[in-house]
Amino acid sequence: MTIAEQRLERGRRRAKVDAILFWSLENIRYLCGFSGSDGVLITTGDERTFLSDSRYEEQARGEVRGATFKKYKQKIEGVAQFLQGLGVKRVGFESAAVPYESYQKLREKLPRISFVPLSREIAGLRARKNREELEKIRRAIQIATESFVDASPRFKPGVTERRVAEFLECRMRRMGGDKPAFDSIVASGPRAALPHGAASEKRMGRRETVVVDFGARFQGYHSDETKTLILGKPDAEQRRIYETVRRAQEKAMRKIRPGVSGRSIDGAAREVIARAGYGKFFGHGTGHGVGLAVHEEPLISPRGRGVVEEGMVFTVEPGIYIAGWGGVRLEDMVLVTSRGCERLTVLSKELNENIFTG
Amino acid sequence: MTIAEQRLERGRRRAKVDAILFWSLENIRYLCGFSGSDGVLITTGDERTFLSDSRYEEQARGEVRGATFKKYKQKIEGVAQFLQGLGVKRVGFESAAVPYESYQKLREKLPRISFVPLSREIAGLRARKNREELEKIRRAIQIATESFVDASPRFKPGVTERRVAEFLECRMRRMGGDKPAFDSIVASGPRAALPHGAASEKRMGRRETVVVDFGARFQGYHSDETKTLILGKPDAEQRRIYETVRRAQEKAMRKIRPGVSGRSIDGAAREVIARAGYGKFFGHGTGHGVGLAVHEEPLISPRGRGVVEEGMVFTVEPGIYIAGWGGVRLEDMVLVTSRGCERLTVLSKELNENIFTG
Repeated sequence: MTIAEQRLERGRRRAKVDAILFWSLENIRYLCGFSGSDGVLITTGDERTFLSDSRYEEQARGEVRGATFKKYKQKIEGVAQFLQGLGVKRVGFESAAVPYESYQKLREKLPRISFVPLSREIAGLRARKNREELEKIRRAIQIATESFVDASPRFKPGVTERRVAEFLECRMRRMGGDKPAFDSIVASGPRAALPHGAASEKRMGRRETVVVDFGARFQGYHSDETKTLILGKPDAEQRRIYETVRRAQEKAMRKIRPGVSGRSIDGAAREVIARAGYGKFFGHGTGHGVGLAVHEEPLISPRGRGVVEEGMVFTVEPGIYIAGWGGVRLEDMVLVTSRGCERLTVLSKELNENIFTG
Repeated sequence: MTIAEQRLERGRRRAKVDAILFWSLENIRYLCGFSGSDGVLITTGDERTFLSDSRYEEQARGEVRGATFKKYKQKIEGVAQFLQGLGVKRVGFESAAVPYESYQKLREKLPRISFVPLSREIAGLRARKNREELEKIRRAIQIATESFVDASPRFKPGVTERRVAEFLECRMRRMGGDKPAFDSIVASGPRAALPHGAASEKRMGRRETVVVDFGARFQGYHSDETKTLILGKPDAEQRRIYETVRRAQEKAMRKIRPGVSGRSIDGAAREVIARAGYGKFFGHGTGHGVGLAVHEEPLISPRGRGVVEEGMVFTVEPGIYIAGWGGVRLEDMVLVTSRGCERLTVLSKELNENIFTG
């Protein structure tokens, strides 16, 4: 039994359910290999069944491992019929993924089955990565890294944010990535104050800071990384803010080892930024797990109560954002090792390596 | 009041709710203009409030129209606090979009509020397009069309499916598309039997059929179109199946006019395919609305009970898929006019125009 299978079986027993209904495509892919975009997976103590419609029949027959495939015509009816046939009494379901409407319809069709919302019981299912998953993550990072290096000469005054984002994304695709992990953020000058500023038609300007948050996807696994470039000699404020974020990131990374809570890793970064007087300009959490989803467990934030474990992969990405001025974010992915962490992303986050004078 | 606003107000009154909680990013964008990827919109009879976190604060202040912006630290708590402050008693929510877990948390925090699942009351909200929306859809189609024309010479024996998909997608991005509307399908030879066969490393072969399903997104609006190419002189079976699908598509299009049900449009296509003896090889619905989402109302399928109305935009895409042999799908987007429909997509679906002999 793999770690994930043990977690799953423990969750099932703790919730005292006879079966679990998985709805999210990430968990479905994780547990049976199906990479398409519709279907459900139903697990009992010893059996797994993947259900989908005719559009995915051939794909499912080719891809699905460790589960039986069953075709339905209509999703809710198909799931209801199958559960009825199983003769189960208590069915756990992925409550963060199942829409209320689907839950309601299933309950109406199966009044004798108790549906038990599962959340914490299955939340960390994918958090610890195995060797095969790590290889895919490393490959996604490599694709993103090489694409960024190729795109580097294009980060210069006068070029639009959108144009470099396009280049970067096409490059990742060309190098074998499934697709970009998410819409790339290229946010320059005052736009860098938008933590999620999608690349726009704005031209990058001389001496502006440019936040570049990008990632590739390879065989379903994602990379996620942020560099902040300065297009010219940094002024005192740019330097001070950049170095503060950099120190916060390093402090958080040094805190990481098995058994430490997500909250305390976040706290380490947050403290550095607060002490430098920028506390109120760091509005988001310090990090999040990355794998089949770009955002998954563990949560590295003031709300991250769980502890990190060996084999978990997550981001460390403090930032400072000042409306009207701009912003700096530095993001790396790390793997928790037995004694600390290994940085998986390789592009430099040192200020001197990020001054682009073209 | 726009048509959408009238529908919204009618839905609110019919459900007897004081406020509606919108959760899907498409409805949020539609109703207040926010294009980011997290937040909720709460509407009452006369006020709209968009709530999101600090990552989207600046973007929301720049983009949101006709709604007040309010920042929260944490989504569920922020929404709960705001609803409490409103003093409302019955709150409708988008039940197809709100995950069960979020519903459950809101209910726990607000035991005195009744949460009313809304589904049909708001389902068709975005179905009829206004002039501005149609312009964006037409622009998305134009981007996809020109990109396909540029990619055409690459559809030839020996080239991998993936390579042409990459080219097509990069081209759409370069021409001003936000991004591809979805992962392009390029499925050749026996793979064409996979209605959702993502482009693979398979090389296209001589005389194979190649199903190419692709689309662009422009300012949030999508295009969606499928061509089936034949890489050489078609044999009798390819010709027979292609022409059957073509006749089914034409028959369905001729059926379209305001007041006709989605089911009967689907039936028109289905009948042609069934009569030709391929009924069991057409496993999906005939079409779906397209707009801010790639799949939205109306539903053109055996389950499509509603009638189509002037201004609706949807696909007409019958197909025949035979395991081991391959498949043919032809998909166009149409706009319902006062007396019939206008085909919006422009690339030819005539067999003779889709024989690629390189």
